[in-house]
Amino acid sequence: MAESPITQRSQDFAAWYQDVVLHGDMAEPAEIVKGCMVIKPNGYAVWEVLQRELDDRFKATGHQNVYFPLLIPQSFLQKEAEHVEGFAPELAIVTIAGGKKLEEPYVIRPTSETIIGHFFAKWIQSYRDLPMLLNQWANIIRWELRTRMFLRTTEFLWQEGHTAHSSHEEALEEVLRMLDVYADVAENIMAMPVIKGQKTSAEKFAGAVRTYAIEAMMQNGLALQSGTSHDLGQNFGRAFDVKFQTKEGQLDYVWQTSWGVSTRLIGGLIMSHSDDKGLVLPPKVAPVKSVLVPIYRKDDEKAQVLEAAHRIAADVGAQGVKVKIDDREGPSPGAKFFHWERRGVPLVLELGPRDVAANNIVLKRRDTGAKEVLPQSEVAARIPEALAQMQSDLYAAAKQRLKSNTVLANSIDEVQSILADVTAEKGGGKFVMAHLKDDPVCDARLKEFKATVRCIPLVDEYDGPGKCIVTGEPVDRRVVIAKSY
Amino acid sequence: MAESPITQRSQDFAAWYQDVVLHGDMAEPAEIVKGCMVIKPNGYAVWEVLQRELDDRFKATGHQNVYFPLLIPQSFLQKEAEHVEGFAPELAIVTIAGGKKLEEPYVIRPTSETIIGHFFAKWIQSYRDLPMLLNQWANIIRWELRTRMFLRTTEFLWQEGHTAHSSHEEALEEVLRMLDVYADVAENIMAMPVIKGQKTSAEKFAGAVRTYAIEAMMQNGLALQSGTSHDLGQNFGRAFDVKFQTKEGQLDYVWQTSWGVSTRLIGGLIMSHSDDKGLVLPPKVAPVKSVLVPIYRKDDEKAQVLEAAHRIAADVGAQGVKVKIDDREGPSPGAKFFHWERRGVPLVLELGPRDVAANNIVLKRRDTGAKEVLPQSEVAARIPEALAQMQSDLYAAAKQRLKSNTVLANSIDEVQSILADVTAEKGGGKFVMAHLKDDPVCDARLKEFKATVRCIPLVDEYDGPGKCIVTGEPVDRRVVIAKSY
Repeated sequence: MAESPITQRSQDFAAWYQDVVLHGDMAEPAEIVKGCMVIKPNGYAVWEVLQRELDDRFKATGHQNVYFPLLIPQSFLQKEAEHVEGFAPELAIVTIAGGKKLEEPYVIRPTSETIIGHFFAKWIQSYRDLPMLLNQWANIIRWELRTRMFLRTTEFLWQEGHTAHSSHEEALEEVLRMLDVYADVAENIMAMPVIKGQKTSAEKFAGAVRTYAIEAMMQNGLALQSGTSHDLGQNFGRAFDVKFQTKEGQLDYVWQTSWGVSTRLIGGLIMSHSDDKGLVLPPKVAPVKSVLVPIYRKDDEKAQVLEAAHRIAADVGAQGVKVKIDDREGPSPGAKFFHWERRGVPLVLELGPRDVAANNIVLKRRDTGAKEVLPQSEVAARIPEALAQMQSDLYAAAKQRLKSNTVLANSIDEVQSILADVTAEKGGGKFVMAHLKDDPVCDARLKEFKATVRCIPLVDEYDGPGKCIVTGEPVDRRVVIAKSY
Repeated sequence: MAESPITQRSQDFAAWYQDVVLHGDMAEPAEIVKGCMVIKPNGYAVWEVLQRELDDRFKATGHQNVYFPLLIPQSFLQKEAEHVEGFAPELAIVTIAGGKKLEEPYVIRPTSETIIGHFFAKWIQSYRDLPMLLNQWANIIRWELRTRMFLRTTEFLWQEGHTAHSSHEEALEEVLRMLDVYADVAENIMAMPVIKGQKTSAEKFAGAVRTYAIEAMMQNGLALQSGTSHDLGQNFGRAFDVKFQTKEGQLDYVWQTSWGVSTRLIGGLIMSHSDDKGLVLPPKVAPVKSVLVPIYRKDDEKAQVLEAAHRIAADVGAQGVKVKIDDREGPSPGAKFFHWERRGVPLVLELGPRDVAANNIVLKRRDTGAKEVLPQSEVAARIPEALAQMQSDLYAAAKQRLKSNTVLANSIDEVQSILADVTAEKGGGKFVMAHLKDDPVCDARLKEFKATVRCIPLVDEYDGPGKCIVTGEPVDRRVVIAKSY
């Protein structure tokens, strides 16, 4: 057997990730544009599945899609003090257009709160115009120093929801509703368990009152912030003068939210489930759920096998699952198996002359590698079952990993020693649950050993109040501390 | 009755268009970003319908979606001489990023042939890698001087197909296949008849060997180029050194194509069907196909009417057509009728207490304004029929308009006098069929009175060969000359 082109996880997790992305036809670095990637067919097809799942949920919760300009007048960013401070270092700036130097440069959107704030001010006059529930699918540029495909790229694709409300209560409900939508897609579609929580003030979005996030654990134990939902309070309402007349006839600033997930989700998906053979995709996000590889040598075998293959594909198709028949000339069956294995296809069916003679077919599951010989008459019923089983097994495995790599710590030294040697390459990461105050001093202490508070969980699954391991002050629950992407 | 907020077509067609766009909730100018617009909910929803129709056809013809970077190294544009000459004046250029002046500036893609050429060179080695059939959905920036919402904006949304082939024949088949896909969506989904043809060399895409286009006629008689499909020959293959080993073992440059349609299609849709009351959407592109407006004054009427409304909506829903019930409190029924009329909803249902008592309902078609009183038991069957009828009536009307505004001319003076007074505001445009040589000298002669050759039709529906009205040389068919957007 030829040596695998994929680095083993135990050797170098970061190199493994890169190999899985490349050999899975998910993306490749676009080295000629700093920190960018090309999203390749399999990667983009996964993104389309995620878009559909998310977009359906956005629409079901009353949001409408819109599109705002890519370019934002530079002065807009400066209207919200924290916002410009957070984003200024990462901006890409257009200074020349149409052959002329621009009087006021434009920035390429690093996020769209500011330009949307401008339009909210035009569109919102009265409580009758509220809530305004918008979303856009767009590309974003943030000039990052260290980049990794999907996880952090200078350009990425995302959706950004932007809403305006007449009260803080209603805005907060929206923030948590969309956090739930993200958790639903992560857990039930991507099979990626997440912890819902609040970010510390040091880690919140630049310009938000409060940021909520879903945090997932990768196979190396590092955390991945996978989606955020921001309570913007009246900060942008004030900055862009978005006032409305209340039911009582007063003028007030609107209460805003914003929330987003990006192509980063795909990085999380890959690092949640893939293995040393390459990409593993949970059935619900797999663009191709099953492939049939016909095996034959002579022409008469070929005719028989392909005839049976098409019949079986039609049977399975009637159950709502498309079977792709890989009838390419040229590559050997072995090469085809590797091809689909590395692309993460959940189920591969093998069909050779002996199977045809015996009315059998072989079904192989991508995650377990288990092979099952089935009567052809049963395969149409079996495939949806096998897909459902694989989906729930992947979730259970990821959930178990999260559980067994979550530990409690009761002193800062303990936290530090648990996380000391953890890197993206070597792995060994843990989610350390400790009592810690939401205070920049505490965040700074963790930074000393490159850890962060991932979130203050919404639900306390541990022992309630305790004393902050840095300041000794009382806090009401343990927070999640980890190294992260 | 209040005066219509929409300018009449006969008064000022350009002002009418702007009013229809604004009052149809389709878009609004983003005056703070030169030549940009915000695509509003109704406009974006139409774009989503068009995306789905197009994307399904792209996939059915074997294409895969991918995503390439927004930013392109400036030097890439210069590799193809005609290409850079065509696009250089329209570029938006990023010179600063991450707080530093860039050594090599990036341009924001005005189209992606160059960056894709770079990757084709990496990905393609052998005839076995061909054809490579890719498409991307993306935003584009071209710094235009005069802009109009949807029709010409500095930023627009589009798809761009990029393919590589091992022979010119195969590439040309692809070019014409995708032109057919565009014509299919224009005619059968948008109800917008088009003429398929070839552009003159003066009008072709910068860098193409040959450009094909679909041309539609707007209600003011102006032409709108609605989609293009380019035979790039080996021009970009040579510029980016995209070589492949042929079956015979030789090295050759690939033959490429590219093809695109954009949010401009929505402008064409609006100017094909809308009327003095506002937007008219053909049923197949209408995000909301039917709305039921309940009419009541007292509370007991309200209960009865809404109960019947929900029952009817469920019946119609069972036929696969969603009925949106406009049960907003506040606006009067009259205000609701105007609201949906201006948004182009194909069918509006009215239901009041007297209708409920008589088991009737009123159905009103947006295009004809015709009202029909129906027994409630028939409405579920009637709605799909009415939608289909409206779809084909809109196409027939547009086709008839195209026919009656197409005229023949046999001298350049005749062409000039037919088109002399035509403007986007006043209308009166015609498609003038005349014999004209594909020679920049002839294109230049038309420019004197602001007309252009829209295309050399693929199918000659007229009288075959004749003499060029400018040079007197023999040409094989009449071409379409018009004023255009």
